[in-house]
Amino acid sequence: MTTPLHGLLEQDPVVATAGAGMFAEALREQAVVVSEADWRPPPEESVEALGRVLADRRRAEANTLALQRMTAAGADLVDVRPAREALGLERGTFLHAGPPIEWERASGPLRGALVGAVLLEGLADTSEEAEQQLAAGVHALEPCHHRDAVGPMAGVVSPSMWVYELRDEVHDHTSWCSLNEGLGKVLRYGAYGPGVIERLHWMNTVLGPLLQEAVRARGPVDIKAVIAQMLQMGDEGHNRNRAGSLMLLRELLPTLITADGSSADIAEAVRFSGANEHFFLNLGMPACKLSTMAAEGIPGSTVVTTMARNGTDFGIRTAGTGDRWFTGPANTPEGLFLGSYGPDDANPDIGDSAITETAGIGGFAMAAAPAIVKFVGGDVPFALQATQTMYEITVGEHTAYQVPILEFRGTPTGIDVAAVVRTGILPQINTGMAGRVAGTGQVGAGLVNPPAECFTAALEALAEQPEA
Amino acid sequence: MTTPLHGLLEQDPVVATAGAGMFAEALREQAVVVSEADWRPPPEESVEALGRVLADRRRAEANTLALQRMTAAGADLVDVRPAREALGLERGTFLHAGPPIEWERASGPLRGALVGAVLLEGLADTSEEAEQQLAAGVHALEPCHHRDAVGPMAGVVSPSMWVYELRDEVHDHTSWCSLNEGLGKVLRYGAYGPGVIERLHWMNTVLGPLLQEAVRARGPVDIKAVIAQMLQMGDEGHNRNRAGSLMLLRELLPTLITADGSSADIAEAVRFSGANEHFFLNLGMPACKLSTMAAEGIPGSTVVTTMARNGTDFGIRTAGTGDRWFTGPANTPEGLFLGSYGPDDANPDIGDSAITETAGIGGFAMAAAPAIVKFVGGDVPFALQATQTMYEITVGEHTAYQVPILEFRGTPTGIDVAAVVRTGILPQINTGMAGRVAGTGQVGAGLVNPPAECFTAALEALAEQPEA
Repeated sequence: MTTPLHGLLEQDPVVATAGAGMFAEALREQAVVVSEADWRPPPEESVEALGRVLADRRRAEANTLALQRMTAAGADLVDVRPAREALGLERGTFLHAGPPIEWERASGPLRGALVGAVLLEGLADTSEEAEQQLAAGVHALEPCHHRDAVGPMAGVVSPSMWVYELRDEVHDHTSWCSLNEGLGKVLRYGAYGPGVIERLHWMNTVLGPLLQEAVRARGPVDIKAVIAQMLQMGDEGHNRNRAGSLMLLRELLPTLITADGSSADIAEAVRFSGANEHFFLNLGMPACKLSTMAAEGIPGSTVVTTMARNGTDFGIRTAGTGDRWFTGPANTPEGLFLGSYGPDDANPDIGDSAITETAGIGGFAMAAAPAIVKFVGGDVPFALQATQTMYEITVGEHTAYQVPILEFRGTPTGIDVAAVVRTGILPQINTGMAGRVAGTGQVGAGLVNPPAECFTAALEALAEQPEA
Repeated sequence: MTTPLHGLLEQDPVVATAGAGMFAEALREQAVVVSEADWRPPPEESVEALGRVLADRRRAEANTLALQRMTAAGADLVDVRPAREALGLERGTFLHAGPPIEWERASGPLRGALVGAVLLEGLADTSEEAEQQLAAGVHALEPCHHRDAVGPMAGVVSPSMWVYELRDEVHDHTSWCSLNEGLGKVLRYGAYGPGVIERLHWMNTVLGPLLQEAVRARGPVDIKAVIAQMLQMGDEGHNRNRAGSLMLLRELLPTLITADGSSADIAEAVRFSGANEHFFLNLGMPACKLSTMAAEGIPGSTVVTTMARNGTDFGIRTAGTGDRWFTGPANTPEGLFLGSYGPDDANPDIGDSAITETAGIGGFAMAAAPAIVKFVGGDVPFALQATQTMYEITVGEHTAYQVPILEFRGTPTGIDVAAVVRTGILPQINTGMAGRVAGTGQVGAGLVNPPAECFTAALEALAEQPEA
């Protein structure tokens, strides 16, 4: 007897289930092979907003446009300049990572970095004096993101610091990021001792000008192409930047070494840059910022354009809701610790570097960088699974950034707020860990997720946006 | 009723089968999950030798010693010198890749490279004259391996060429390799046009001396450490050397750029080296040679110490049989072709670069370098499987060289002739492809295996070695 279902049960059935576990259990008892999807219903309070957003007729096209712009954005390193000049940063104004925050609510590492920056600028003679000024509101604090800049960890940028300047010629955008200080006791991790300030002075007076000369003599460096290559070389671009740093060095070293400076200064600049495996991070971040900037201001799009943390709050912004931040309390990463530090020493999640995940690399590309588990914790199957899972909450795949081990599949790109709320799957971020006490510096590196409330709040706002 | 087998059949059985397929088939018909091992019985003519070798009481310990020495061997780049001086190479003597061969049986690319080298040495004015001299036996031909050297592809080394000098301080061994010319129309692929000879002259008079100065000023470079790192950065060290080349550049550039030479010469040396993604191959090969040299001369060991091809014959040597070569006709690689070249243009397998596979990297480490499939063909699952399969025919795992995606498992190291004959699994090599007509140059890159007769012949010889 031939029916449309003829043959269906001649082979063993393979069943996929979602939701309540009873059905899967019942099948397993009957020796059926069951693939259970990790799905849970959206939180009850978000059901209505989710329905409205999913029904928004603009959404599919808007998200496609957001992804198209994000992947089309260019990122050329074109200059290195003082923040004063590049960002128009005024004396007494200090940029920081994450959403807006006041001194009173600032975490230890952000406070430490601000104290160090006040000292660097010569606005105070002692850390106590700097702290008093900051507590009294003498200085202005502002997110890096509000000036199209990004800063790793505390992300503090003061006028005398030098910044990389990157251009997206496709969308006519510019982004900036500070220079990388290396690891350990450094300002961005909240350390502000004399060695930290001395290094920053050297970066302002020696390294910055030499890098400026090297970049100007060489001409634009295609940072997007470097990111594409590094993903084929075991980096994911957030906490593993080894190949990226080497490629950048190859591009800059010839004009750096022949720059107009004392041979001792040049030798020190080369040694400093060559010894720093995270040299490239501060180029990858503004490249990712340019990618997400291209998706800003698309009505109806539920794509995340910013994820950033100030050490207290985690904040996101979306393509459909403009400059508005949606925040929640930052989680504390879990991972591997330096020396004798342990979980109690770690500050909650901090830094603008989650811009890498927002643009489809970093934690989203960990499958390309299995060796990173020796730095941030987890194991190799976790690294593979992290990338695979992120496809569930992203609009599509990056066209330029590919993961060889996944048969060159593009990285999961364009976090969809609606998909995050619908699935309950939160973006996977890997991160450095700052000591929670101001002045400590780096204590480790690990894995972390944003708080869910950023996404439910953003969804509510998206649901309130009227269709045109 | 409780028996020792109690519970065995309460869960579905999982069965592994080997050999004749009938048993597996019968089980599959009963809906049992079967894992079939890819095993076939050894060739009938090798059964007796295999029995004698497997029964040799020295074998296990000898092979363990061979592996221990191979993985313990160091590899420091200590100098760059002319072959005349480093190898004592006499005017009129030419080294080549693979086992010994005479002009009459030499393949096109080897003939082309020899003609070019005779021209480079100024021993003939035209290619016709060079060819006549070579055909008349005026010049002496000798394998690189007979002087503890290795050469990629044709592997021709003449007295005026400069070579890298590497030291294994653990076993007090030295090995050498020529400098890399880049890809395309180059001597090692059999090209000998004016551009090829001009480049070689420049390498002899400008690049070699500058690299010598850079290496001597810097001090020894730990090449083994670079190989360990590159395997975590998407290289496998035979046909993918991107990260290795960048790391080498980082080590050498500072002293290269400040070397005593004209700034135009230095700029050209930097440009040439930085643009060559295979710059590192000629360092990785002698490092692997030092590893295998450490295993030479261990009575009773069935570990392969050399795999090398001259474009006509594939030859191997083993730890237990000393300097004797076991040869068979070289296979022709299958892979991807440059421009309009196709399979008919490819010469059979050529070069000493299979020393990489002999030492546990290259084709044996392709799981670490999935992106290589875009260069040599195959797909990502094949790259993963290639490494997995090589564990079947190797004595153990490398202690320094690890594959992140295989959860940091050491690379399969120490090819066991007995295991090759017993399983029928041949070593996996990836390789450049030379044009079969002298003068052509590179036509592509691909995948290839040695001929089985090398291993059956070596097994016979091992079976004839008396126990002490």
